[in-house]
Amino acid sequence: MVGVDIGATKISAGLVGPDGRIRLHGGRSIHANDGPTAVLAGVVDVVERLVEPPARPRAVGVGVAAQVERGSGRVLYAPNLRWHDLPLADRLGKALGCPVTIENDVRAATVGEWRHGAGAGRDDLLTLWVGTGIGGSVVSGGRLLEGSSNALGEIGHMVVVAGGRRCHCPGRGCLEAYAGGWAIAERARERIASEPELGRPMVGRATSPEALTAAIVTAAARDGDPLAVELMRSTSGYLAAGAVSLVNAFNPELLVVGGGVVEGWPEALGAMASAIRNGCQPPAAAAVRVVPAALGPDAVIVGAGRLAHDRLLGAERAGRPAPRTKRGGHP
Amino acid sequence: MVGVDIGATKISAGLVGPDGRIRLHGGRSIHANDGPTAVLAGVVDVVERLVEPPARPRAVGVGVAAQVERGSGRVLYAPNLRWHDLPLADRLGKALGCPVTIENDVRAATVGEWRHGAGAGRDDLLTLWVGTGIGGSVVSGGRLLEGSSNALGEIGHMVVVAGGRRCHCPGRGCLEAYAGGWAIAERARERIASEPELGRPMVGRATSPEALTAAIVTAAARDGDPLAVELMRSTSGYLAAGAVSLVNAFNPELLVVGGGVVEGWPEALGAMASAIRNGCQPPAAAAVRVVPAALGPDAVIVGAGRLAHDRLLGAERAGRPAPRTKRGGHP
Repeated sequence: MVGVDIGATKISAGLVGPDGRIRLHGGRSIHANDGPTAVLAGVVDVVERLVEPPARPRAVGVGVAAQVERGSGRVLYAPNLRWHDLPLADRLGKALGCPVTIENDVRAATVGEWRHGAGAGRDDLLTLWVGTGIGGSVVSGGRLLEGSSNALGEIGHMVVVAGGRRCHCPGRGCLEAYAGGWAIAERARERIASEPELGRPMVGRATSPEALTAAIVTAAARDGDPLAVELMRSTSGYLAAGAVSLVNAFNPELLVVGGGVVEGWPEALGAMASAIRNGCQPPAAAAVRVVPAALGPDAVIVGAGRLAHDRLLGAERAGRPAPRTKRGGHP
Repeated sequence: MVGVDIGATKISAGLVGPDGRIRLHGGRSIHANDGPTAVLAGVVDVVERLVEPPARPRAVGVGVAAQVERGSGRVLYAPNLRWHDLPLADRLGKALGCPVTIENDVRAATVGEWRHGAGAGRDDLLTLWVGTGIGGSVVSGGRLLEGSSNALGEIGHMVVVAGGRRCHCPGRGCLEAYAGGWAIAERARERIASEPELGRPMVGRATSPEALTAAIVTAAARDGDPLAVELMRSTSGYLAAGAVSLVNAFNPELLVVGGGVVEGWPEALGAMASAIRNGCQPPAAAAVRVVPAALGPDAVIVGAGRLAHDRLLGAERAGRPAPRTKRGGHP
């Protein structure tokens, strides 16, 4: 099975075994100005380097940062790629001559961690990905939840400060508006503007306050810069409040936490676990453990490959014919 | 089918038809000092007035404000009734000579609204009950979610103000700590203490500031008392923040809202709908409607009766024998 991760700046892919291990990696860069046709040609190229024609993959799964229509594999909206209403599963399926499954990348990564990573063997878990943005996904009673319009799991946009900071979404006070990478950088710039002396060492690490990133703030905190430490500790505090909300609302047995911000500042996991222990409803607190994601950047590839595998199996069990192909071989 | 609602001060019950309508009502008062034996005798008495021996009900469903063990119908903890580790399903089943299903009362009320109330025919909905406390429950993909330790849905304890007001639970800044009935009264007392002149008319409605309740604050707001209006508007604001979190996290098609606080201040529903429209992720906002609960105080009885019906049907379909009984008849 082939899993593909279409990101904002690159396509990554892998040949995924039934055990969830990636047997062979592939990838290439893309640019924001590449239109869908160029990106799709890039995906075909990457896949055909993993499974060389005339052989073809049995099925391909794709994770993409997009709102995906349930069932059809149509991308309704992908802000980073500027795609609107693109029949991605159909177009890739025709080009590759095999069934293609499309899933939102956060969902795909969750399936990866659930089936082959930190959540293997569990029936009730949440993932929380803290990168530039914050996303997550929910497995409850052994099922990946989808919601009424396939949009369940926007847990970065749970409100942790009613009436608080403006978010990049239409809301205010969202978890992401405090603890997402962009928000950490924004909060750093504001603190530096109000206390330039205290901020000078951190600005010295960037070319200008505008060039500050969460990674720079994290590195400064790691070196003991007082303002950076203050910022990362308050980031942990907001993530802890979000974790309490999630555990009270969803009662998972695992909260799987990944993404660049917490990889850079793993102290956040301890703060989340402690807040859950001290602040959650006792039955929910007793049931859950906070664990780091296990698959790193491969989670989307592994999960997308697994979804393609499961849907192919489902189709075969239901007796549907495999789609026609002009090429031979079924690796 | 018989549905029973064991509350803190009374037992209410009804003979529930397959259409969810209550054909006959019954009930009696209980006291906080009644032990479990007295309360159980009260339940048996109420049920036997609805279905007179030697006839017996085919099945009885009970909703109770408690943490219930999945499967066994054992009450692990019921704070209002001061019950710990009580085998409620077994004891009532023996006394009544029929299968008894026990469910948390918020879940039972949700089943009532889902199957026979505001949510009839829907597969993805949330209930939010705003009374003295705040609770809720989640139906996703046509299934009532339970969580890993049967504690899913403590949505009154989602954090809306990180580091905010102390809650009655171990946490801080919970939705309930701002918008639950007890919290509205507490916030009113604090405002009155800081502005006694402004608070005088509201205190005049109670015997003392300590005797203030959310119902008194709501009635004062209804009459235009400025401090009470301010308090109920801010209550709406916190409920709106909670609604945004819920819709972003769960992507329901309906948010069913009930309970004494919003029955007294239905403006809160408009505030919630408006905040969702303006502050949620667009796909989630477009999918959902905010509607009032339809069954009022009967929701627990209807839902508990329905659960008993469904579980009996499930047992019969699975070919399990109906439990033996010493009495005749199956109304």
